[in-house]
Amino acid sequence: MGDDRKLTPRAEDFSNWYNEVVLRAELAEHSPVRGSMIIRPWGYTLWENMQRALDDKFKATGHQNAYFPLFIPLSFIAREAKHVEGFAKEMALVTHTRLIANPDGEGLIPDPASKLEEPLVVRPTSETIIYDAYSRWVQSYRDLPILLNQWANVVRWEMRTRLFLRTSEFLWQEGHTAHATSEEAERETLTIVGVYRSFMEDWMAMPVITGQKTESERFPGADRTYALEALMQDNKALQAGTSHMLGQNFSRQFDLKFQAESGDWEYAWNTSWGVSTRLVGGLIMTHGDDSGVVMPPKLAPYQVVVTPIWKTEDQKTVVLEKAEFVASTLRGERVRVHVDQRDNMSPGAKFWDWERKGVPLRVEIGPKDVEKQQLVLARRVTAEGQDRKEFLGEVAALAAIPERLLEIQRTLLETARRRQRENTHRVTDYGEFTRMLDERGGFFFAGWCGSAECETRVKEETKATIRVLPDEEFRSETPPERCLVCEGEATHEAVWARAY
Amino acid sequence: MGDDRKLTPRAEDFSNWYNEVVLRAELAEHSPVRGSMIIRPWGYTLWENMQRALDDKFKATGHQNAYFPLFIPLSFIAREAKHVEGFAKEMALVTHTRLIANPDGEGLIPDPASKLEEPLVVRPTSETIIYDAYSRWVQSYRDLPILLNQWANVVRWEMRTRLFLRTSEFLWQEGHTAHATSEEAERETLTIVGVYRSFMEDWMAMPVITGQKTESERFPGADRTYALEALMQDNKALQAGTSHMLGQNFSRQFDLKFQAESGDWEYAWNTSWGVSTRLVGGLIMTHGDDSGVVMPPKLAPYQVVVTPIWKTEDQKTVVLEKAEFVASTLRGERVRVHVDQRDNMSPGAKFWDWERKGVPLRVEIGPKDVEKQQLVLARRVTAEGQDRKEFLGEVAALAAIPERLLEIQRTLLETARRRQRENTHRVTDYGEFTRMLDERGGFFFAGWCGSAECETRVKEETKATIRVLPDEEFRSETPPERCLVCEGEATHEAVWARAY
Repeated sequence: MGDDRKLTPRAEDFSNWYNEVVLRAELAEHSPVRGSMIIRPWGYTLWENMQRALDDKFKATGHQNAYFPLFIPLSFIAREAKHVEGFAKEMALVTHTRLIANPDGEGLIPDPASKLEEPLVVRPTSETIIYDAYSRWVQSYRDLPILLNQWANVVRWEMRTRLFLRTSEFLWQEGHTAHATSEEAERETLTIVGVYRSFMEDWMAMPVITGQKTESERFPGADRTYALEALMQDNKALQAGTSHMLGQNFSRQFDLKFQAESGDWEYAWNTSWGVSTRLVGGLIMTHGDDSGVVMPPKLAPYQVVVTPIWKTEDQKTVVLEKAEFVASTLRGERVRVHVDQRDNMSPGAKFWDWERKGVPLRVEIGPKDVEKQQLVLARRVTAEGQDRKEFLGEVAALAAIPERLLEIQRTLLETARRRQRENTHRVTDYGEFTRMLDERGGFFFAGWCGSAECETRVKEETKATIRVLPDEEFRSETPPERCLVCEGEATHEAVWARAY
Repeated sequence: MGDDRKLTPRAEDFSNWYNEVVLRAELAEHSPVRGSMIIRPWGYTLWENMQRALDDKFKATGHQNAYFPLFIPLSFIAREAKHVEGFAKEMALVTHTRLIANPDGEGLIPDPASKLEEPLVVRPTSETIIYDAYSRWVQSYRDLPILLNQWANVVRWEMRTRLFLRTSEFLWQEGHTAHATSEEAERETLTIVGVYRSFMEDWMAMPVITGQKTESERFPGADRTYALEALMQDNKALQAGTSHMLGQNFSRQFDLKFQAESGDWEYAWNTSWGVSTRLVGGLIMTHGDDSGVVMPPKLAPYQVVVTPIWKTEDQKTVVLEKAEFVASTLRGERVRVHVDQRDNMSPGAKFWDWERKGVPLRVEIGPKDVEKQQLVLARRVTAEGQDRKEFLGEVAALAAIPERLLEIQRTLLETARRRQRENTHRVTDYGEFTRMLDERGGFFFAGWCGSAECETRVKEETKATIRVLPDEEFRSETPPERCLVCEGEATHEAVWARAY
């Protein structure tokens, strides 16, 4: 509160800007446990709004929520070979269940007598324990599909962490479904890609490219992984969500079988899919500016902050009364509004505070405004050429506010789309690619021969990876003919970028 | 599905009845990890509805949500002496962060090289890590109060577990507040008791007695613990929620200080409060009957299930169309309604299925009903003397349904209140108390001299404990004069019961 230092400009050091924004907008902070974060109310309310919107979409597409245990027996995780290989190096392991006084010194230690026979893994993801449960629930094709989701915390021990983007513990949703046929499961993975995309674009105002991951970037245990990739303002890509076609890999390991209509016993087909608190990082890096966070109105904890301005006690009474009237009128229109009554901050300091926190619209009310029956609206962002401040008669202003919020939402998406378009390149020459990657970054569409060698070479030489093999609507009209790397025949168009 | 076996009657074996109900209503089941449970969609949706109602109440009383880490450094937990003593014997401890191939045999083991310098405790409750954070956030009295809540999973390693009632991992909310004065903190603890009580009575239809815990039953680290106690159908008490006045015990250990208006530095005053998935168990044991669960309409995942009945395909078309019309009309009235279209179950089997799951109201629609333009309403519970089934003209039926749901909600609360009243006893003689406790159980109001000795004696001899020293509105008009146990002067009226 009242921290008036300027943020490091994005152009100077994007990474420092990001950290400062997260801390000073009071979205989150580091916790004393390495790699864990504390999500503060401003950040958590944003996450709650995201959850609500996603959850409604999941339910509208036939999913229900459930809850599965935090602890998974080690033997479960070990059952699917690629799965355990993918997660073995980042697992928090519970080995004891009791503390005793240290017999050899001070303090408390895990009681050796409480050592578990089998260590428990704190879930990094829940495929194993969930498909084990499904195997008990499913006998017949009539018990399928199972379409469940859970909102949960997961732990992947990380050496290098960044608030929201990569933390040892994070919050997410993980959907897990079981189907009678491969086709139905495939359809489910794509339905979810559609759900995620509409959420990211319509709610977060964050445009994405969708497509399939290459084999090297697949989820450990999946046959195919579909991903949604967004481009941040520093021109690095962010994997914003994934949807996995798991085939029968887990159903075979967990004996998830059903009797088909034909009478035969078959293994079910599974999908899993998730997005996490990482999306908060994506939102910040998509819309934030040198003044702070910029929240899309549909997700902002407060869409409007009313700032009453006064000097004398008489003025205070009058402007507060007006501020409360404005707030309650807007609440009647389902606008999320807050009146900032703090009396130990100047109006200017309040303006900066809410700008840093990303509130889309500010309403200023001073004694003169009350007299003139006007309100001052100040938008956090405007389309090009528009004034930030508007002086409107009270009635006109109240009527305009919901429309202004919609405009801001639209402007954010348009601006982000334009930025993505301007930073998406089609390249055919490897030298040009590496030069442009270093100079400006962005998404690079180019041909790929399909070989892991070429993929690895790019990664080793440039740190760029294939983000996705893009879905048809994102592909070039004329497919690339040659592989960007080896100049052999291109079997795919790929999108390369450096990524978070 | 289609499990038509009768449940063990409550009168025969309440404990078996409870387990069967939970499993066969598909509320929850045991997981492969000892003491953990899987909350199935039917149980989880109930919990979501409870969460939503509580969360709205928390926000209406000025609280916001946040999220704090799952892992707590051992040194934090150890700082408040009574706190660690209370939880040391039931802590899941994370000691390693990586798996490697077992060099001495098969499988995977925790990598000794990944051993943490300091073990991490999987949070049994979050006072320590939260007040540590508050100590960084608070400088001045202007930063107070802090009124936060988090929805989270916690782990307390339990030897004897029961679905919902006592599990090693459970879901809960924990509120944590910091205040400038003792009075304000005290007011907060009581505000929350009020919030919990109105939720339990108005939403769960579960009457409670409120009051203070005795010293021996206090939360480890609290100055005072307020509790809400409900009486289950087997006449055992259930502690349904607690609200703790923590005084300055944690603020002293975590250096949570602020500069008061006077300029002096003072320690803040804390409160914490929580309810958990245990409430689901309370709901079941309050309202369930020998046919299964009974859900209060305000919390039921489905308030109405429409069961179309047909023999021929022509009939099917007609009744399904009517069923969809009824459902969409009710949805327009914000009724949560489901049409059971399953074609592999008889109508009777469907009736039993939804009765076991506790759906408050069933609408039956057969071809005759469509012809007569009538609907059959069947209530899960009725007030005494009422018929369960009603045959009403379609328009009248649709208009009646919201009112019937309100009636059912009222009937459940009235029935539970009457049962509680009939099983609440005022005793003065220890022999009579122990005999009645064994014969019928219930709440026993009696005098207490205030000594831990008398409290312990009762516990050892009868397994009954003092549930609360009841708040004024629950106390007898004439205060008891003598201690039930030692017959010394009574300083308090106490409520004894055997408890879950």
